[in-house]
Amino acid sequence: MSDEQFAAAPEWTVSEWLNVAEPLNLAALRGRVVVALAFQMLCPGCVQSALPQLKRVHDTFDSSRVAAVGLHTVFEHHDAMSPTSLRAFLHEFRFDFPVGIDAPDPAGGTPLTMRRYSMQGTPTLMQIDAEGRLRQQTFGHDADLRLGAAIMALMLEAAGG
Amino acid sequence: MSDEQFAAAPEWTVSEWLNVAEPLNLAALRGRVVVALAFQMLCPGCVQSALPQLKRVHDTFDSSRVAAVGLHTVFEHHDAMSPTSLRAFLHEFRFDFPVGIDAPDPAGGTPLTMRRYSMQGTPTLMQIDAEGRLRQQTFGHDADLRLGAAIMALMLEAAGG
Amino acid sequence: MSDEQFAAAPEWTVSEWLNVAEPLNLAALRGRVVVALAFQMLCPGCVQSALPQLKRVHDTFDSSRVAAVGLHTVFEHHDAMSPTSLRAFLHEFRFDFPVGIDAPDPAGGTPLTMRRYSMQGTPTLMQIDAEGRLRQQTFGHDADLRLGAAIMALMLEAAGG
Amino acid sequence: MSDEQFAAAPEWTVSEWLNVAEPLNLAALRGRVVVALAFQMLCPGCVQSALPQLKRVHDTFDSSRVAAVGLHTVFEHHDAMSPTSLRAFLHEFRFDFPVGIDAPDPAGGTPLTMRRYSMQGTPTLMQIDAEGRLRQQTFGHDADLRLGAAIMALMLEAAGG
Repeated sequence: MSDEQFAAAPEWTVSEWLNVAEPLNLAALRGRVVVALAFQMLCPGCVQSALPQLKRVHDTFDSSRVAAVGLHTVFEHHDAMSPTSLRAFLHEFRFDFPVGIDAPDPAGGTPLTMRRYSMQGTPTLMQIDAEGRLRQQTFGHDADLRLGAAIMALMLEAAGG
Repeated sequence: MSDEQFAAAPEWTVSEWLNVAEPLNLAALRGRVVVALAFQMLCPGCVQSALPQLKRVHDTFDSSRVAAVGLHTVFEHHDAMSPTSLRAFLHEFRFDFPVGIDAPDPAGGTPLTMRRYSMQGTPTLMQIDAEGRLRQQTFGHDADLRLGAAIMALMLEAAGG
Repeated sequence: MSDEQFAAAPEWTVSEWLNVAEPLNLAALRGRVVVALAFQMLCPGCVQSALPQLKRVHDTFDSSRVAAVGLHTVFEHHDAMSPTSLRAFLHEFRFDFPVGIDAPDPAGGTPLTMRRYSMQGTPTLMQIDAEGRLRQQTFGHDADLRLGAAIMALMLEAAGG
Repeated sequence: MSDEQFAAAPEWTVSEWLNVAEPLNLAALRGRVVVALAFQMLCPGCVQSALPQLKRVHDTFDSSRVAAVGLHTVFEHHDAMSPTSLRAFLHEFRFDFPVGIDAPDPAGGTPLTMRRYSMQGTPTLMQIDAEGRLRQQTFGHDADLRLGAAIMALMLEAAGG
């Protein structure tokens, strides 16, 4: 439907998965639309706006067609946002979608997946189609109306393929 | 894509159109997805939630593909919600999408279009596809994420027809 | 407690009172702190913010000590905000505090009380002490925390007088 | 002004103070009204409602008359809410009022100050008068209008003493 060419979404490098029985990866999600949010648990815009939006995505769409996934991309205050703190945060705020911890760079700074996607900061929302291509990457906030439309477009593309 | 059969949306009977150069009707809107909101200017749920949502629809989607339309369906306090009051209300609240005044029944009570659609009250949101069929009618509030998805589904159906 | 001198609040000229058994006036309110809001029913800032705040004042404080009063000061769209429309508006939005209709100037334009108080527009909040003096007049919004503090200061001044 | 007798607020036992040059204690705050919030950094009601309210208190009132103070009373997920995490949290959310870390009980569970005040959970707001007496302790949320009034009552009592 479009003349644009989209590259495959780079694989995620995740050191630990939470809220899910088995580790996830992009190959395993093939066939489903993926809405993935890079966040930090101490980023106010993530806590107040982007994570509640991802939860709405998780609660609104059929999980066999749309996968809502969080990626904890810690690039500052590393000691303050440990896996232990993240686990308590997700529990207390009732964020029950799968969350992967972006693998830290042993040299410090930006974690591996965040760097591979050239993200500018958090929150960053990725839309990945059912064939694993990165269709959109947005730093900051996108309105629900627009996001709902974008998700449906990818769902129907997958269904009609 | 669906086995369901949808009936044609009943025509609107409008006594006066505001915010638009020429009177609208469903035939003239054929080819576009129509998101129409039945409201009353003194209904709190309309003012606080449903009308701002219709404005977001109006501002988000290309008007050559999606038409956002208000219908002022006054079924109580008729003297309080005259066309003069409505015109000032739309101006002050910056609601700039087309609004039709549902034609009052000379016998009083529910106006003609509202009765024809068997609406229970305001706000009621109608989704009409590009072929003029009533695809959804919702009394109360629908979340933006879900509404955005529904609009996109109708847009793509129209484009692919 | 203050060296400032405050003038008596100018009397209100009201053509009709709603939500109250008997007409009000400043003399009758002497002994109570008066929080009065000049508003228009089609002013978005009044509907979304100032009138809900006045209702919170009405619901929070003992009415034998603090009187919350609305003044409908129509200075534009006069035909759109008639007493009939106002009455339906107050009913539908559940604003149940006393509301006086500021008497229109037969020559048109700004109504009499609004002019007497030299108000710049709506919403305007007046704080009048128990001796009938105008202690504060604010065009626009004042935060609840600050307003609650101001009301208590006037209440205690009255009690200690 | 009241026949009630109020006991002295029990002293706080704080292991570390943040956002302040010198450790605080109730004796040092004598002469000022104290609004103190017991919170946990991973308690949603604290993050979304009670801490922003405390910041409004801090920003609204003259700090020489009203002291806004946070107490980090960790009674669960101790490893997740370490001083390191708290420090990053306060920095990222721009909470710049003094915060004391309630001293943990070596035996685990509820920290010392929280236990001494018999608190039921977080958020809990304490109002302490200028003579160091505990005047009100509220578990949950209190509206800004009511809180502003209560603070002003204590301020005037202090000024008039």
